[in-house]
Amino acid sequence: MSDVVPAEQLQLLIERIERLEAEKSGLADDIRDVYAEAKANGYDVKTMRAIVRLRRMEKNARQEADALLQTYRDALGLD
Amino acid sequence: MSDVVPAEQLQLLIERIERLEAEKSGLADDIRDVYAEAKANGYDVKTMRAIVRLRRMEKNARQEADALLQTYRDALGLD
Amino acid sequence: MSDVVPAEQLQLLIERIERLEAEKSGLADDIRDVYAEAKANGYDVKTMRAIVRLRRMEKNARQEADALLQTYRDALGLD
Amino acid sequence: MSDVVPAEQLQLLIERIERLEAEKSGLADDIRDVYAEAKANGYDVKTMRAIVRLRRMEKNARQEADALLQTYRDALGLD
Repeated sequence: MSDVVPAEQLQLLIERIERLEAEKSGLADDIRDVYAEAKANGYDVKTMRAIVRLRRMEKNARQEADALLQTYRDALGLD
Repeated sequence: MSDVVPAEQLQLLIERIERLEAEKSGLADDIRDVYAEAKANGYDVKTMRAIVRLRRMEKNARQEADALLQTYRDALGLD
Repeated sequence: MSDVVPAEQLQLLIERIERLEAEKSGLADDIRDVYAEAKANGYDVKTMRAIVRLRRMEKNARQEADALLQTYRDALGLD
Repeated sequence: MSDVVPAEQLQLLIERIERLEAEKSGLADDIRDVYAEAKANGYDVKTMRAIVRLRRMEKNARQEADALLQTYRDALGLD
């Protein structure tokens, strides 16, 4: 290691990753808390997750996906 | 290890898991192949995956989930 | 749908996927059962999973990975 | 919806989740960038990920896990 890459550089890289991972983990907790708050207010979490996914899509893509799913459901009699 | 549990027993357990994992991995390949075949025949894979998820649900649960999602979409003006 | 691809073909493809998914799910249950049996016999499941991953590697790759991990651990004083 | 929970409250909850998800996604990008920088400097990413996992453990737990893995490897002749 000492010949190839300095240990100090590795240490610094690892510590940067750890700080970012800690922040990311904190945000995951925050997201969980908002869903918990929503649930406590009577909202359905699974439906909210579906909404978040749908809002992430472009309107055109979402409408095409909706139409295609409906076509397949109709074809299979899946109501 | 020799005092607690015999190495031979561990070996047998690991080999059983490996055989099952190999079969499971083979099935995952088979599933990928069917989706690839469907895609080659003009079907949309993402929509097919949604269909598989919907068919896994009880009819009542599916219809309730559909209605709830529509309610939330309407509330947010998400068409 | 009727113009593009026949509904019957879609139905058959979906049913093939569902059969394969059911088999795959059954194997996942079987694997869980073997681990539960191992645990009941005093084995550590997390260590067994590590063993399965290590046995999946080529001997050379495994030994190189081991050596590299030891080098990094030494560099960071991680014992 | 209007009778059960106000649409405005749902809108606010969804927007809070979206902001947190965007931040979380940004951090995931940052982490990817640090690993890419490490790789460009000659470090092995897979080994770095193993180091991050090991450093997350308490020293005692890590040493016990190491010892157990070595015991299992010896029992199976996995070098």
